[in-house]
Amino acid sequence: MAELRQDPTTHEWVIIATERAKRPHDFQKEAPASAATARDPACPFCPGNEHLTPPEDFAVRREGAANDGWRVRVMPNKFAALLPGAEIARHNGGVFRGMTGYGKHEVVVETPRHDQLMALMELDQVEDILRAYRARYLALRKDHRIRLILIFKNHGRAAGTSLEHPHSQIVATPVVPASVRVRCETATRYHDDTGQCIHCVVRDEELQQGTRVVMETRGFVAYQPFASRVPFETWIVPKRHNSSFGHISDHAIPDLANVLRTVLWKLYYGLGNPEFNYIVHSAPIEDEDKEYYIWHIQILPRLTLQAGFELGSGMYINVALPEETAAFMRDCKAKAG
Amino acid sequence: MAELRQDPTTHEWVIIATERAKRPHDFQKEAPASAATARDPACPFCPGNEHLTPPEDFAVRREGAANDGWRVRVMPNKFAALLPGAEIARHNGGVFRGMTGYGKHEVVVETPRHDQLMALMELDQVEDILRAYRARYLALRKDHRIRLILIFKNHGRAAGTSLEHPHSQIVATPVVPASVRVRCETATRYHDDTGQCIHCVVRDEELQQGTRVVMETRGFVAYQPFASRVPFETWIVPKRHNSSFGHISDHAIPDLANVLRTVLWKLYYGLGNPEFNYIVHSAPIEDEDKEYYIWHIQILPRLTLQAGFELGSGMYINVALPEETAAFMRDCKAKAG
Repeated sequence: MAELRQDPTTHEWVIIATERAKRPHDFQKEAPASAATARDPACPFCPGNEHLTPPEDFAVRREGAANDGWRVRVMPNKFAALLPGAEIARHNGGVFRGMTGYGKHEVVVETPRHDQLMALMELDQVEDILRAYRARYLALRKDHRIRLILIFKNHGRAAGTSLEHPHSQIVATPVVPASVRVRCETATRYHDDTGQCIHCVVRDEELQQGTRVVMETRGFVAYQPFASRVPFETWIVPKRHNSSFGHISDHAIPDLANVLRTVLWKLYYGLGNPEFNYIVHSAPIEDEDKEYYIWHIQILPRLTLQAGFELGSGMYINVALPEETAAFMRDCKAKAG
Repeated sequence: MAELRQDPTTHEWVIIATERAKRPHDFQKEAPASAATARDPACPFCPGNEHLTPPEDFAVRREGAANDGWRVRVMPNKFAALLPGAEIARHNGGVFRGMTGYGKHEVVVETPRHDQLMALMELDQVEDILRAYRARYLALRKDHRIRLILIFKNHGRAAGTSLEHPHSQIVATPVVPASVRVRCETATRYHDDTGQCIHCVVRDEELQQGTRVVMETRGFVAYQPFASRVPFETWIVPKRHNSSFGHISDHAIPDLANVLRTVLWKLYYGLGNPEFNYIVHSAPIEDEDKEYYIWHIQILPRLTLQAGFELGSGMYINVALPEETAAFMRDCKAKAG
């Protein structure tokens, strides 16, 4: 019998379609050969081609490194969805509301190496990426016109990326998206009713049940949510309440780097380098001090397609049981850090 | 400069990314050769293979037709996401809510011909499909456990279909999906404030502005919404207020068949048979008599991919201007009906 499960943080239902269920290993594919080359002369993100991108906003550099020493580089996206420069103007033409597309859209080049996937990086490289995320988050949030900062990564063509060189993106928007607002309202109402943060309650319940937990460290839990929308959806959630990724502490960064790399490594080896997106969710900037939200990383492998039903209803049909895929992930052992 | 536009029916923002904008003809591709064969012996939906599917729930038959005379056939989906049979049981385990996956999931085989795309069908065939949709909608809504009935079509692999033989699907759910509830609440509040149906107001405004209208008939308008989420998103909306597709009148069916086929024909010839989903949206059954909702068909071509930003924020980045793509569609002339 199929089962419906409700995401407690959005109240959206997910159909766990056991009639068409797949076992975790059904999602495995042959891992493609990794990009053959550590440097691609035509790649704008490779060392030596820095002139092909807009000037950098930020970089992590280390003494004695090759090229000009950068390990992580952040610059404006050449094909930005939102742009700074213009003043924000709203236009309310009858029933249609619009505004100028003010905002920031940046690219984080994660490594000088063209062929280095995050799943296979040294830990200190992942730490530098997270430090770059934090530095840019904090810089962008100083702009009072910015309402939300979203950090995300698209890995593989099906996940929406066109450039192979490992990179992430940061978008800072001048509005709070409606679905983010709904998430906040749901959490606020839960907090009004119970005095608790719904995200913390869910995390603690996942920890207690344990069947969907992938790993746990001193500061973080990785689990596949009760109402996972897609097979192998995985959340990384801090144990300490904190609504904004910008507030992550120095000492939490190595811990998070380890959890993030381990989860990506398990996906890489367990499933054969699947395409995926991850999103670093933070509360809207105006809600950073509220007690009802917790920043987290949501990893969404692209193993199945969303069709008309999902597009029309917002309800997902998930053909895998989170309890089974989480057990598969736990059993997939990563190398030592 | 990029532009943000808000969908008045959901309040979700869309980024119209003019910096990366594509012109309508950039989305054209070579139309693939259509399926070579009118009948595939291995296809469960082809005539002669009726025994490969579950028993039919409904069919349109005509005197003198080939095989056993069916023109459209509806049967339970062999790989159903939701199933009838069990009683609905809710389980509220702490913060996690679930229920048995009660529901109905049906397949509508649109034609006996394996290679007949809806865009290229005779009008009376499209009419028979719409009659089958209505008949099943009305039959399914008699089940008091059903809350919402969604009719949809996935065309092409990227749109989530695995079987080539033209077919649509119907899913009847035992809950109102949260995003559908949000849409209803938005419309209710607008109705509370103004006494008007937001969907009718938007349709009339689109008609008056005209720049995004694709076509208009006596009973219907097809337009590409002000805040289109994807390039060439097209809505077909009845002029007469009616919240449920189940209530469509006999005389409106030929009119709708003409509009639907013409829009699909324009996409087929204009863009080279793109993959797409369409969804026939109706109000939840409990809200069928409310004045604030209007059933409509939403056509979503799969010309671009949604990446981490869309998945994380619910905000879409659309790289085409609806005013330009609608003009392109108007200029693409369909054959006479």
